[in-house]
Amino acid sequence: MILTVTPNVALDITYQVDQLIPGSSHRVRGVEERAGGKGINVARVLHALGHGTMIFGFIGSATAATVTTDLARAGLAHELISIEGPTRRSIAVVDSSNGAATIFNEAGPRVPAAKWEDLEAMLAARLPEATALVVSGSLPPGANDDACARLVRLAASHRVTVLVDTVGEALLQAAAAGADILKPNSSELLDTTGLSDIAAAATELRRRGAKAVVASLGEDGMTAFTSDGSWRAAPPTRVAGNPTGAGDAAVAALIAGAVASTPWPDRLRDAVALSAAAVIQPTAGSFDVNHYRSFVHQIFVEKRHAPGLDR
Amino acid sequence: MILTVTPNVALDITYQVDQLIPGSSHRVRGVEERAGGKGINVARVLHALGHGTMIFGFIGSATAATVTTDLARAGLAHELISIEGPTRRSIAVVDSSNGAATIFNEAGPRVPAAKWEDLEAMLAARLPEATALVVSGSLPPGANDDACARLVRLAASHRVTVLVDTVGEALLQAAAAGADILKPNSSELLDTTGLSDIAAAATELRRRGAKAVVASLGEDGMTAFTSDGSWRAAPPTRVAGNPTGAGDAAVAALIAGAVASTPWPDRLRDAVALSAAAVIQPTAGSFDVNHYRSFVHQIFVEKRHAPGLDR
Repeated sequence: MILTVTPNVALDITYQVDQLIPGSSHRVRGVEERAGGKGINVARVLHALGHGTMIFGFIGSATAATVTTDLARAGLAHELISIEGPTRRSIAVVDSSNGAATIFNEAGPRVPAAKWEDLEAMLAARLPEATALVVSGSLPPGANDDACARLVRLAASHRVTVLVDTVGEALLQAAAAGADILKPNSSELLDTTGLSDIAAAATELRRRGAKAVVASLGEDGMTAFTSDGSWRAAPPTRVAGNPTGAGDAAVAALIAGAVASTPWPDRLRDAVALSAAAVIQPTAGSFDVNHYRSFVHQIFVEKRHAPGLDR
Repeated sequence: MILTVTPNVALDITYQVDQLIPGSSHRVRGVEERAGGKGINVARVLHALGHGTMIFGFIGSATAATVTTDLARAGLAHELISIEGPTRRSIAVVDSSNGAATIFNEAGPRVPAAKWEDLEAMLAARLPEATALVVSGSLPPGANDDACARLVRLAASHRVTVLVDTVGEALLQAAAAGADILKPNSSELLDTTGLSDIAAAATELRRRGAKAVVASLGEDGMTAFTSDGSWRAAPPTRVAGNPTGAGDAAVAALIAGAVASTPWPDRLRDAVALSAAAVIQPTAGSFDVNHYRSFVHQIFVEKRHAPGLDR
């Protein structure tokens, strides 16, 4: 079973409007609501791939029912910790005239330190039967910068592979804690390290302790920096659609590959194919199965010959 | 006691963002939530003016607590009928760079016919002790066009003065049912009647059965068409601020004036002053007391000499 932690669970709301005009009133034509947050999207993709998953995270009690009802409907097992206040909303306003999504992300309620201890205790109870742990998404207000690092060390103490997809100081500390895989996107990686080069930034995270760093490059694919070498994988063509959730699909492929001990070039090929197949689907956490199967044979993987830690 | 009906209660949510840029992601800096809908805003203003009020309406059970908690905190008595689904949201995104509000209005859940019967029964129980009834705002999905007209006839059977502020076929039928006062804004009045002249449109509603029609003209004030004559009232200066809720403040003044049998020119003066004082306040349902007291002595009221029903 693969455990996924979503520190800042969201209620993802999608509004369809005829045309978004700032400063005016809009009639919302359609409303969709679902459980969101990066770790939950990763679990959706893993579940669709046939992996057993368990979702962990913090959820605002005032609107918890909408989230848990949606997870139950999707057949996704979860152990969520209730906190005071409403679950944060993420509202995507989709303009029907051009398909553009304008997104409003609430910060969400504060998570008290005691609730983080509850999370660690719940994970400790499940880690003996787990094959991997994914910690994905931003941290809620009030979280300590070492929150992800603590979960990395907890997984390591159970000899469970751990992947972290976050940003900033929490990402740096997850590296120092020896995370097996870090998966920032390129701008998060550069912002976090303060460097201007992807390879140099990934090398810096590996120098701090991360075993592997995979940077997603948007439409250009992905680059992996590992102790076995470095590879870059690119999709066959640029894919049009909704990039939200593409990174989460990549995380799902990378952790599934780690569990199966797939060679890195194959993991990366799978991650780029699944990511592209997710872009085609309008909602985060879903992917187009036929496109995935087709893409996976068309991905170009190139070995990089980089200096430094890339041996 | 003045009863107010809000057929389509809303959860009014206000987001502060740095700058609204269509197609991009925004961090929401501040979130405010309160009970909304035109009838509730009218009750807020009446309550602030010292009138006893009772709020009626339909409320989606899934998010009812947020609405009722807010009403209780404001000291507003209410008898709300629970319906399935979430209360509709109205989200105002306020751009901090220029103060402009971009609004997204959900349609809200359907109200089954049996719940309208429940509403009529609850109103019938309160009308014997009521001095007036206000029905304000759009109808929820699934409502019959005669929904407001039925409430007008119910109030009339109890000899209670009734004001209706709505649009379209529901407004036409409220006129035919003999509503004491109709208060559309000018564009709603023209759209509903299909006419291009305010006086002609108001005369048409009175010909159908309405006793008086008051059209709000935005920054230009208000015009009343009654059996005692017609008047126009204009504010002393154009007032900058948030026009949301200005019409509801006018409704509160008009119904309070009707209860007190104030002469029409004074009612109109009061409505325009309160409306202008509401524009100055950022939230719907509140007004600036000092500006109200000052404005009321500065409103210019002019008798109109219109043909037709204006005697």
